[in-house]
Amino acid sequence: MNHTPWQYRYAHRTRQMGSSVIRELLKLTEQPDIISFAGGLPAPEVFPVEKFREACNIVLQEHGARALQYSTTEGYRPLREMIARHSNRYGIAVTAENILITSGSQQALDLIGRMFINRGDRILVESPTYLGALQAWNAYGAQYVTVPVDDEGMVTEKLEGALRTGPKFIYVLPNFQNPSGVTLSLERRRHLVELADKYGVPIIEDDPYGQLRYEGQHLPPVVAVDSQYRRDNGSTYSGNVIYLSTFSKLLAPGIRLAWVIAPKDVTRKLVMAKQAMDLHTATFNQMVAYEVGKGGFLDEHVKVIRATYKERRDVMLEVMEELFPSEVYWTKPQGGMFLWGILPEGMDSAEVLKKAVERKVAFVPGAAFHPNGGGQNTMRINFSYSAPETIREGIGRLGRLLKELIRDSRT
Amino acid sequence: MNHTPWQYRYAHRTRQMGSSVIRELLKLTEQPDIISFAGGLPAPEVFPVEKFREACNIVLQEHGARALQYSTTEGYRPLREMIARHSNRYGIAVTAENILITSGSQQALDLIGRMFINRGDRILVESPTYLGALQAWNAYGAQYVTVPVDDEGMVTEKLEGALRTGPKFIYVLPNFQNPSGVTLSLERRRHLVELADKYGVPIIEDDPYGQLRYEGQHLPPVVAVDSQYRRDNGSTYSGNVIYLSTFSKLLAPGIRLAWVIAPKDVTRKLVMAKQAMDLHTATFNQMVAYEVGKGGFLDEHVKVIRATYKERRDVMLEVMEELFPSEVYWTKPQGGMFLWGILPEGMDSAEVLKKAVERKVAFVPGAAFHPNGGGQNTMRINFSYSAPETIREGIGRLGRLLKELIRDSRT
Repeated sequence: MNHTPWQYRYAHRTRQMGSSVIRELLKLTEQPDIISFAGGLPAPEVFPVEKFREACNIVLQEHGARALQYSTTEGYRPLREMIARHSNRYGIAVTAENILITSGSQQALDLIGRMFINRGDRILVESPTYLGALQAWNAYGAQYVTVPVDDEGMVTEKLEGALRTGPKFIYVLPNFQNPSGVTLSLERRRHLVELADKYGVPIIEDDPYGQLRYEGQHLPPVVAVDSQYRRDNGSTYSGNVIYLSTFSKLLAPGIRLAWVIAPKDVTRKLVMAKQAMDLHTATFNQMVAYEVGKGGFLDEHVKVIRATYKERRDVMLEVMEELFPSEVYWTKPQGGMFLWGILPEGMDSAEVLKKAVERKVAFVPGAAFHPNGGGQNTMRINFSYSAPETIREGIGRLGRLLKELIRDSRT
Repeated sequence: MNHTPWQYRYAHRTRQMGSSVIRELLKLTEQPDIISFAGGLPAPEVFPVEKFREACNIVLQEHGARALQYSTTEGYRPLREMIARHSNRYGIAVTAENILITSGSQQALDLIGRMFINRGDRILVESPTYLGALQAWNAYGAQYVTVPVDDEGMVTEKLEGALRTGPKFIYVLPNFQNPSGVTLSLERRRHLVELADKYGVPIIEDDPYGQLRYEGQHLPPVVAVDSQYRRDNGSTYSGNVIYLSTFSKLLAPGIRLAWVIAPKDVTRKLVMAKQAMDLHTATFNQMVAYEVGKGGFLDEHVKVIRATYKERRDVMLEVMEELFPSEVYWTKPQGGMFLWGILPEGMDSAEVLKKAVERKVAFVPGAAFHPNGGGQNTMRINFSYSAPETIREGIGRLGRLLKELIRDSRT
C-alpha cells in the first residue's frame, strides 16, 4: 500500500503538519538503556494502583451498566461537583455548570483552539511555552506573539507591547511552568490581570502542576486574582480567565482526565464543540476518578507525590551544583516536574543531545518551546520520572559531557 | 458571570455552531418515565460487566504502572495486533501499522475531517446519513452531495452524477445503516467500488454494527471488495478505502474505544493529527479491552448481543405489523440497532414527536439526517435499548398516535 489516492486529498492544514518533537522523544524514552530526562512522565511509583483497583471494583459492582454506557458530553456530574468544591477552596468561585470534563488537557487546548482561533489570529504566549499548546493551535493556523520568561515567570513589564498587537487571548502557565519550571510571582499575576483588563484581552490559565509545590507559599491562581481585581474595581463583567487543570499529575495520565473551568456561556459552547470531537470522555474513567477522589484521598495522595518529587528535584539540583560547568545556568523550580538549563550563547542544545544520546542520557532541546525562534542554547530536564540514583548517574553523565563540550569549544 | 469577553472572540466556526439534536435527545432519554426509541444506546443488560471487572483487576495487578502511564498515540500494540488479526478474518488484509486506536468513532470522524476537509469541500454522503459524521465535518466547513438510500442501501445507480461534482471522498455505512437500518447489497458494493475507482474518489467505510447481523449472510466489507476489485483488475494502487469500527457496540461505549484502518502513510498522518488532539486514547482502557478480548471472548459475547437484539427487533417488527397504520412504511433491518419509519408525504415527524412525548414515547425525527434537506416525514427508531415488554408498550403508544394523526389529517 505505497501508493494511495489519499495523499492527494489532504487538507491544507495536513500538508503543513510537521513531524512531532514530543512524539520522537517519547520513542527515545522507550529505549530501556537510556536515562531519559526528556519525557514529561509522572513517576509510576506514585500511581495509586491499589486504590484505583478498588475503585474500579466498586464502580463496576455498584454501577456497572451505567459506567459502561454512553453519557453526557459535559461529564459525570458528581465528578464536576467534586472539582467545583476543590476549586472553591482555592478561591475559584464556580459550580458544576462552569466545568467541562475533557480527555486530558491536550483536548482542552484543542477545544480552545477550535472555539477561538481563526487562521492568522495572534495568540500571546510565554517564550518558552508548552509545546502541546503550540501543536494544538498550529492546527488552527495560530500565529504567536511572545513575552519572555525569567525566574519570576512571564516578564509582565514587556507585556504591553505584545498586547498592543491585538492578540486573541493570553496563554500562561503560572505554576512551575512547562518547560522552564519557573513560577509567576504574585505581583506579576496582579500586573498580568490588570493589563489584560486594560487591553480587553482574556487569559487562558493552564495549571497542571499547581498542587505539586515542594517549598514556598501557594500563590492564588490567576483566575482568583482576576476575580479579586474585579471585585476591588467594581468591574461590570467577570470571567476573563479560562482555567485548565488535570488528573494526569495528581492521579494518573493513562486515564486521560482533565477539566476546563470557564464562564457558563463558554462552557456550554465548549460542550457543543466537544460533542462533535468525541461525544464525551469515558464514563468509566470519570466514575472511577470520582470514586478514588470522593473521600479526600487525593489530598493525602498529593503529599506522597510531593515528597517523592521533592527528593528527586533536590538530588538533581545537588548533582548539578556539583558537576555542571559554571558556564551553565539552570532554574530552581519550587514545584512541578521540570527544570530549565541555559547553555552559553552559541551552544546548540540539539547538538548536545546527539552526543548525550551516545552516552545514554537524554533531555529536550529548548528551541521547540519557542514558537518564534530562539532558545537554541536551552534545554528542558525532567526530574519527576527517574529514581534518585538514576538522576545522580544521568546528571553526572550530562555534566561531564557539558564540561567537555565547553572545554573543547575554547580550544 | 453573564457578561464575559469570550463571546466576542469566538472563531467563525464557533459562531456557526448550532444547537445539537443528539444532545437534546440524550436529555429526553434521561426522563425516566419516557419510553425512548430516540437514543442509539446499546442494551446495558449485555455489557459484560463481570468480565470487564476481572480484566481491570488483571491489568492493574500485572501491569498497573504501565496501564496508568502516558502511552504512544497510535495505541496499545497488542490491541492493534488483535484488531489486525480480527480484520484479516473478514478479508481486510492489514497489520498493526495500518491501525490507529481512537477515543470512539466520533474522534475518528473528527480526525478524518481535520485531515481531509478544507472549507467548502464537497463530501458525498448517503441521504439519510449518520448525524455524528455531519456534526464532525460541519466544523471543517464541509458541503454535502447526497445519494439516496433504498432497501438495498445507497442507490449506486444515482452515484455517477454525484461523483461528477468532484467530492473529496464518499462516506458510506454499508451495514444496518444508522439511521435507516438498511444494508448495501453485494452487487452495489461492487458497483460503488468500481465507480469510486473510475472517478478516482476514495471511500470512508463506517462499520460500527457489522457483526450485529441477526439473519441473512455476512457481506464482505467495502474495503475487502475494493481489494478484490484491484487484484482482479491489476490496479497500480490500493488503499482506496479507510475503514472505521468500534468497541462501543461489541463491548461497551462508556470506555470510548474505536479504531481506524487506513493505508500506512495515512495512518502515520492520522497519528500526528491525533497527537495534537488528545495525545492518545486512555492506556488503561486499551489494555482492559485487550485483556477482555484476547482469549476469543468477544466472539462468544457477540452471540449474546445478537440473540438479545434479534428478539427486540422481532418484537418491534411484530408490534408494528399489528398496530402501525398501513400508510406508514418501515424498514426491516437484518442487523444493527435502528429501523426507519416513513410517514405519508406531508406529515412532519417533528410534530409527531411533540405529541409522542406527551404520551411518553420518543424517537428521532429524520430530517436532521438529511444534510441537504428533506426527510421531514421520516423517523429513526432504536430497537436495541429497550426490553421487549417496553418495546411492545412504546410501539403500541406510537402506533395508536400515528393512527389518530393520520385519521385526523383526513377529516
